[in-house]
Amino acid sequence: MPKYTKNDFPTWNVRRFLEPGPIVLVSSAYQADTNIMTMGWHMVMEFSPALVTCLISGANHSFEMIRKSRQCVINLPTVDLAEAVVRIGNCSGRNVDKFSEFGLTPKPGTLVRSPLIDECYANFECRLADSGWVNKYNLFVFEVVKAHVAASPKFPKTIHYRGDGEFMISGTETAKYRRLFRPGML
Amino acid sequence: MPKYTKNDFPTWNVRRFLEPGPIVLVSSAYQADTNIMTMGWHMVMEFSPALVTCLISGANHSFEMIRKSRQCVINLPTVDLAEAVVRIGNCSGRNVDKFSEFGLTPKPGTLVRSPLIDECYANFECRLADSGWVNKYNLFVFEVVKAHVAASPKFPKTIHYRGDGEFMISGTETAKYRRLFRPGML
Repeated sequence: MPKYTKNDFPTWNVRRFLEPGPIVLVSSAYQADTNIMTMGWHMVMEFSPALVTCLISGANHSFEMIRKSRQCVINLPTVDLAEAVVRIGNCSGRNVDKFSEFGLTPKPGTLVRSPLIDECYANFECRLADSGWVNKYNLFVFEVVKAHVAASPKFPKTIHYRGDGEFMISGTETAKYRRLFRPGML
Repeated sequence: MPKYTKNDFPTWNVRRFLEPGPIVLVSSAYQADTNIMTMGWHMVMEFSPALVTCLISGANHSFEMIRKSRQCVINLPTVDLAEAVVRIGNCSGRNVDKFSEFGLTPKPGTLVRSPLIDECYANFECRLADSGWVNKYNLFVFEVVKAHVAASPKFPKTIHYRGDGEFMISGTETAKYRRLFRPGML
């Protein structure tokens, strides 16, 4: 299991980790229940407030937990958790306690009741900011209110879903084009 | 310049290319004007109809062109276009004809007037499906009505933005977990 030491991270910059498109784990709590789901459909919407939107199918046990508690944590797993990520996405919190089943550690959040997954590279505590399209599209708009990110490595090796059971693993190569950007466009 | 031979591709499966989170180029046409913008904030929303949502800042010249024409093409560039992608994102269609400036070939669409960028690995012709959150969040919901995808390679080498002028280049390694999926969860 990976073990990361984490620091506070500015919420306006969570795009650094979400915009590249990794699969994430969403943890939630409602009444005495906690749960984890695997999620691929998410998008950064705004720097400040730090808005992130995502699609959560109504078939997920997490759907009602998040809708009712109006909170969740978006956790960023690295490739060493890939098999757990797949297994988490293929069973239901209705009949499995996913934290204990997959040996993951629930860590108390700072600003939300939803538990952080300690073994993930980063944890983004979220509050539901707009539920206006929850019924129409199952689309949630969250505000990231607190971010915790591993001190190292600088770039996590993340997994990116292509459908059909196949994942792209993020490259280790970084292309730098800072010199070509206008100020304010970075 | 890359040169791809493309085939029709099922629109319900564009997630294969968009869900991993690549930077895309959005091309548009309005009256006599065409334009291209670089975009990182997009998300698949539904398989069928093939809905994709994205954030287009009102500061972009493309914003009004797309809002008024209610169409665009989402083009998938590969790493060999990385420098052009950055340059396209750092100049404005107000004073640059980006197709000619960057040596890109506009190819007529099948179902939309917006031009396809021939040098891209894939082209997704889109119609605006829901403008309800355009004013509130600059958020567009498109339906992909026609998809064109390169016959090879199977997996394009895409670029994924981390902010600060830095891109992750997609890995060439594929992790396969098909055996762990329940039917219907792929």
